[in-house]
Amino acid sequence: MLTTPDFTEITPTAEIKAARHGNRAKCLQRLVRLDLPVPLSVALPFDTVRAIATGRIPNIAALWGVFGVGALVSVRSSSQAADWGGPGTVLNIGLNDAGAARLAETHGQDAADALYLGFIKAYAVDVLRLDADMFEGPITPRLAKTYFEDELEEPFPQDPGVQLTEVLRSMARAWEGTSARLLRQAQGAPADAGLGLVVQQMALGIGQGISGSGVVQFVSTETGSPRITGRYLPQGQGRAALSEQDAHFIESDARGPALEDTSPKAVKVLRKAGALIRDRLQEEMQIEFTLMNDTLFILDAVRSPRTGRAEVAIAVALAEDGIISKAEAMRRIPPFTLNQLLHRQVDPAAARDVLTRGIAAAPGAATGRIVFSAAAAQAAAAHGEACILVRRETSPEDIRGMGAAQAILTERGGMTSHAAVIARGLGLPCVSGATRLQLDARKKTLTVPGRKIFHEGDLITVDGSSGEVLAGFARMIEPALGGAFATLMKWADEARDIGIRANADTHAEAEAAQRFGVDGIGLCRTEHMFFDPIRLTVMREMIFASEAGDRTAALNRLLPMQRNDFTALFKLMQGQPVCIRLFDPPLHEFLPADRDGIRAMAEAMDMPVSRVAARIESLQEFNPMLGMRGVRLGITLPEIYDMQARAIFEAALVAGDGVVPEIMIPLVSARREVELVKDRVDAVAAAVRNEQGKDFDYRLGVMVETPRAALRAGEIAESCAFLSFGTNDLTQMTYGLSRDDAGRFMSAYVQHGVFPEDPFQRLDTDGVGELLLLGAERGRAARADLMLSICGEHGGQPDSIAFSRAAGFNYVSCSPFRVPVAKLAAAQLAVLDAVLP
Amino acid sequence: MLTTPDFTEITPTAEIKAARHGNRAKCLQRLVRLDLPVPLSVALPFDTVRAIATGRIPNIAALWGVFGVGALVSVRSSSQAADWGGPGTVLNIGLNDAGAARLAETHGQDAADALYLGFIKAYAVDVLRLDADMFEGPITPRLAKTYFEDELEEPFPQDPGVQLTEVLRSMARAWEGTSARLLRQAQGAPADAGLGLVVQQMALGIGQGISGSGVVQFVSTETGSPRITGRYLPQGQGRAALSEQDAHFIESDARGPALEDTSPKAVKVLRKAGALIRDRLQEEMQIEFTLMNDTLFILDAVRSPRTGRAEVAIAVALAEDGIISKAEAMRRIPPFTLNQLLHRQVDPAAARDVLTRGIAAAPGAATGRIVFSAAAAQAAAAHGEACILVRRETSPEDIRGMGAAQAILTERGGMTSHAAVIARGLGLPCVSGATRLQLDARKKTLTVPGRKIFHEGDLITVDGSSGEVLAGFARMIEPALGGAFATLMKWADEARDIGIRANADTHAEAEAAQRFGVDGIGLCRTEHMFFDPIRLTVMREMIFASEAGDRTAALNRLLPMQRNDFTALFKLMQGQPVCIRLFDPPLHEFLPADRDGIRAMAEAMDMPVSRVAARIESLQEFNPMLGMRGVRLGITLPEIYDMQARAIFEAALVAGDGVVPEIMIPLVSARREVELVKDRVDAVAAAVRNEQGKDFDYRLGVMVETPRAALRAGEIAESCAFLSFGTNDLTQMTYGLSRDDAGRFMSAYVQHGVFPEDPFQRLDTDGVGELLLLGAERGRAARADLMLSICGEHGGQPDSIAFSRAAGFNYVSCSPFRVPVAKLAAAQLAVLDAVLP
Repeated sequence: MLTTPDFTEITPTAEIKAARHGNRAKCLQRLVRLDLPVPLSVALPFDTVRAIATGRIPNIAALWGVFGVGALVSVRSSSQAADWGGPGTVLNIGLNDAGAARLAETHGQDAADALYLGFIKAYAVDVLRLDADMFEGPITPRLAKTYFEDELEEPFPQDPGVQLTEVLRSMARAWEGTSARLLRQAQGAPADAGLGLVVQQMALGIGQGISGSGVVQFVSTETGSPRITGRYLPQGQGRAALSEQDAHFIESDARGPALEDTSPKAVKVLRKAGALIRDRLQEEMQIEFTLMNDTLFILDAVRSPRTGRAEVAIAVALAEDGIISKAEAMRRIPPFTLNQLLHRQVDPAAARDVLTRGIAAAPGAATGRIVFSAAAAQAAAAHGEACILVRRETSPEDIRGMGAAQAILTERGGMTSHAAVIARGLGLPCVSGATRLQLDARKKTLTVPGRKIFHEGDLITVDGSSGEVLAGFARMIEPALGGAFATLMKWADEARDIGIRANADTHAEAEAAQRFGVDGIGLCRTEHMFFDPIRLTVMREMIFASEAGDRTAALNRLLPMQRNDFTALFKLMQGQPVCIRLFDPPLHEFLPADRDGIRAMAEAMDMPVSRVAARIESLQEFNPMLGMRGVRLGITLPEIYDMQARAIFEAALVAGDGVVPEIMIPLVSARREVELVKDRVDAVAAAVRNEQGKDFDYRLGVMVETPRAALRAGEIAESCAFLSFGTNDLTQMTYGLSRDDAGRFMSAYVQHGVFPEDPFQRLDTDGVGELLLLGAERGRAARADLMLSICGEHGGQPDSIAFSRAAGFNYVSCSPFRVPVAKLAAAQLAVLDAVLP
Repeated sequence: MLTTPDFTEITPTAEIKAARHGNRAKCLQRLVRLDLPVPLSVALPFDTVRAIATGRIPNIAALWGVFGVGALVSVRSSSQAADWGGPGTVLNIGLNDAGAARLAETHGQDAADALYLGFIKAYAVDVLRLDADMFEGPITPRLAKTYFEDELEEPFPQDPGVQLTEVLRSMARAWEGTSARLLRQAQGAPADAGLGLVVQQMALGIGQGISGSGVVQFVSTETGSPRITGRYLPQGQGRAALSEQDAHFIESDARGPALEDTSPKAVKVLRKAGALIRDRLQEEMQIEFTLMNDTLFILDAVRSPRTGRAEVAIAVALAEDGIISKAEAMRRIPPFTLNQLLHRQVDPAAARDVLTRGIAAAPGAATGRIVFSAAAAQAAAAHGEACILVRRETSPEDIRGMGAAQAILTERGGMTSHAAVIARGLGLPCVSGATRLQLDARKKTLTVPGRKIFHEGDLITVDGSSGEVLAGFARMIEPALGGAFATLMKWADEARDIGIRANADTHAEAEAAQRFGVDGIGLCRTEHMFFDPIRLTVMREMIFASEAGDRTAALNRLLPMQRNDFTALFKLMQGQPVCIRLFDPPLHEFLPADRDGIRAMAEAMDMPVSRVAARIESLQEFNPMLGMRGVRLGITLPEIYDMQARAIFEAALVAGDGVVPEIMIPLVSARREVELVKDRVDAVAAAVRNEQGKDFDYRLGVMVETPRAALRAGEIAESCAFLSFGTNDLTQMTYGLSRDDAGRFMSAYVQHGVFPEDPFQRLDTDGVGELLLLGAERGRAARADLMLSICGEHGGQPDSIAFSRAAGFNYVSCSPFRVPVAKLAAAQLAVLDAVLP
């Protein structure tokens, strides 16, 4: 057992390590090495603090030997990583009756009383955990000491050794508390993360000369651009300046008094220190300083707080200034930070009149007038009016209306509901599952309990980043896609070694993907193309055709429309690969579900209602997910795929040379399915070549969505050029879990740790991942040049990208607005590999 | 190139092999070795016949050298296995004008004309493929020859060499035809199966002395019991006796003339020959014989035709007489043959008035009066009236009505529909998917296009073995579960080395399982226990309870009922293992789906209809198969499993010492699910032990139904004692295919070879099988004593049993009426392994 704590004075040559003494101690040593005026500081390593927490070091008071009799000190926490947290700073330790009396002589009674009272309160409340209420109101130090003694049945300690011992013990034990542990583990701290402590001689900030304390930083928190910000509080201590209304500015400022007005020299020193620190610490730091009788002390420096946008600007600027490498700049930015730059955001500083909260289903924010139907949304858009589409839940027929709205709000559904998936694809803000809303689509009212009733045309704001629905307008911050962001994306493209494609079903989505600079389209779902009203009618005729001939006639009317779709897509993508998935959904998705719809359809098709209803009923399925869809439909009604293949090939010829379309077969579970479709697609290709007298290439591949397709990838790969893993469906089938139905219990399941994560949000590398690896390995064994990819929603997740890259996949495909995140994540992986070969 | 065919005279020492000359040639050699009077015979091996088919042997006529000038011969096919088929026999080859004239001298003009005309017709129609119509009516040989020449522009060949050449070529080529090939491949013949031919000197069967031909066998075709049957036709040839109305019996017979009346010596010889053949050929053979001027010739012997029941009786009798081993007796019986013995069958000889055909969904046949509702079925049963339950499709509420009916007939659904699955479990005949039926449940009529309208109370017969629905009564053959069947089952139990358990949800099913002698219950689904009307009401109260306390109150009312269920089951099974699956289905299965049902429920629960409807709607799922069921329900509403665990433990204590219940958790996809349920079940066990002051053991296991559970079997096995693979759901999820929805395309899929077999009928060893092997291997690696089994419907399939046995599984579990098949299949595998170590 140690009898005195092990500690190290922070000098330029002392052995201080972040992994032993924590990040703050190390940072302070760096400041010391830069010859900056840091008060005498001592670092306690993790082991010591742990020993203190378990009461194994009796003579903590020995630390006073360093600072000398009558000194005052502060104690700050110093965890290994800045964002792992730690207990708050305690100032003025060592202050007692005698010290207070001395202070009264030098600084006046009021200043001494204020300091002493502050310390007694902090000691009582923060260290000994007494009730703060007890010390409220204007009381004297004497009264505070009486309260203290009443409560604890012992006097307020006069011995600085006792004070310091209690402070250190209290901080050491707070670190071991459950909530602190959970908080830091959520930030990635290991279970055995340690706490260091820094004991620093006080620079008081009060005195006869110019005295006070302040906090300064050299970039804007919001944008990251160079700008001195911060506050200074004359005759103040610590970080109080930031919360005091009447604190001064740092630089001379038209808005009010500034430190520069009274002490231009100090500000000059701070500016110089800031530049030096940025250069040497390779980071924008926020500096805590104190002026004591005209003398400047730098007490502490922490990473400047920043928004995502500032994060990007700072890292890019540091790299452009040659202070850090491009690789380091990319490494520093958590990929999801980029989401904040891609979408309009509600200004964090703006007032928010929150009506209700739902699921933050698609990021960004928008204000608009309420509409309750897709048709109303399209009408509003036609008049140039911003609108918010509010629905119980959305369905494929709503897609055009969704595209016309500024944001989507639904009463039902989760992260993977139709509304959420489509909104993310379109880059529209979406709040889903706002279950407290009472929606009456017939009366066109939206009721929030306890609030006024909202009607069509009323203004609301949807914040898809926070999940909040706000009444009326809200002030916005615009996206920031140029400047530093563009530079960062360029660097990421140079660094990354795995392809990033986008999932894009519509021209608008493909355009968004192009804006973000993708390597191609990884998944173009063709079914959404059939929901346009004219096409839908033809589609329904096709479904109702009883003979192959009638089916072909209906499909022949769809052919030119599909050909135009694909021609536009190929032209837009300018020769980049476009992977088109053949028709996938069950046919009943194209049929009306309610009486009115059935009646309207019967009229449109000139058929008795009973026949329409009977056909619709005959197409109902118990488990549509596992039913007649995908390649099963393609084989049973082969005319559909024939038409699509023809449309693709004819479009490729129209779009010009060098277009090599990729055709993907969905829901395969057996090799023979692939062979059958391949035979017909090859025949269509031969026919088109023959008719047009022109040659073209294409690639046929398989979307691996069933566990069996993954297991049998070896034989399946023999008939195809690529395998793309549809991890959404693969996850559903591997778990036996429908994501549409999982919402009811998934959050409880994750909260109780039944599943460590929602497997639809984060790829399950254990189960689904094993199938991916098996499939990849077997596919490549059968065909060495097999192209492999992920095209599920997991495709944009950094850990899915890491998984895919490690498995040697050629690319991942994700929704267009995930592309920047994916690029950065991919670049980070490549950079990490270059550093750690 | 050979110039003359390679052939071998069939003598006792000749080298005749079934694999080279075919089964008939080998059988004839055996008869020759037994010194039986077989006419001179020659065997042509496969190679020779193949050469003949391709025209590579010019001088076939050289064969006449063996038989001599003026002889007549027959040619019979001799494939390697008797059931691979072959072209029909041709008689009297060599007959020409000169021979016919000679015959007229010795046997009279009529006999000679009849023989010659018969040969000309057979040669023209069967060999040269002329139209049979041409030779209809009473014509002379001369006229027949004229027709022949008119058609072929060449005369009827007088050269016996030409005749024989054409006969052999024709038979050799017929073997290579597509339909013959498909037929024999369906019987398991390899693609290159060869045909041998036997050329045999004719024994004419006509003459002045006692002459004629006949066929005799020594067991009953229907029962297999010893009984001389067959027919004899005086002055006849070949097998004509079997089809002639006025043929004689063999033994003296009250019904008419018999061979024994005129030639007792011949019958004595036949009896002796029959006994000798049975003993030496180790089989019951049907003998073809000819009497020529009082002399008996034995021309051929084939395996006696037989029903499944006779098959069993014959094999068991041969073994009991020491002629073959028990192992050989078991090996000879195709396991599915036993299905014919287990159920009442429509007598194959009875008249059948077929109304329509559906899917043969559950074997057996029954006659009864039509009822259209489960309630009517129960009412009929209460009056002791046999009834047939006719429904569009059945649902869980119909179970009691189904149990009260003699058979089930449904308009919709396939082999795996609710009706089919339950009927097989109950051992009831079922025809499902009889889509031509027009059912009007309200008017209580059943219409078959083109037939009279059937009403409730009308008599029909359901033949679940053939899929036919018959009008009125049909004569039945009763099941045969004693005697030879019982002996066979005893031998199978002695031989087999893998456990056979039964899936049994009800007491009736468990009793059926007990009758067949099982090793335990492998799957007791508990949800069917809640469809009794009283329980259903309590169940619905439980579902509607909004608080855990209310839920527990409802469950407490179900507890004693469940305890009684389990007590009865444990007592019935007398200490054999019983594996109880915890509650699995989605809750909405217990709620009414139509308006009337909802109204009735609202009344019963004293609630507004709107609330009942809203709750039902809130429980609807997009894909119920992949939704809130199984362990997900068990974790979300843990009171249900608590109640079931308590009922199981209390029942085990009531049922007596030594009962070790097995508790199985359904639909697991992650280890933590198992740990959570295990914690609660262990806690219930501890509570029951404490309350009752008695100790007991139990085993907790997991039903592996999701691909992920199979992949993660290693970690799952750490918390459980057994894994039982639910291959139904595992197949659904591995293929991404709902069996309820697959019916619409499965038969087309199998017909077109997309899937080689319906994976719900036959275990997909490639895909699903790999998951089984992975799961088994990983589970056993984690826990060497882990008990492994299959409990899906595949469990009773011989190839699933082979798979399970090879993988080292402890048992398979199948529906009770599959147990005999499973036992025999398992015994065959063990016997095969003993022979081929």
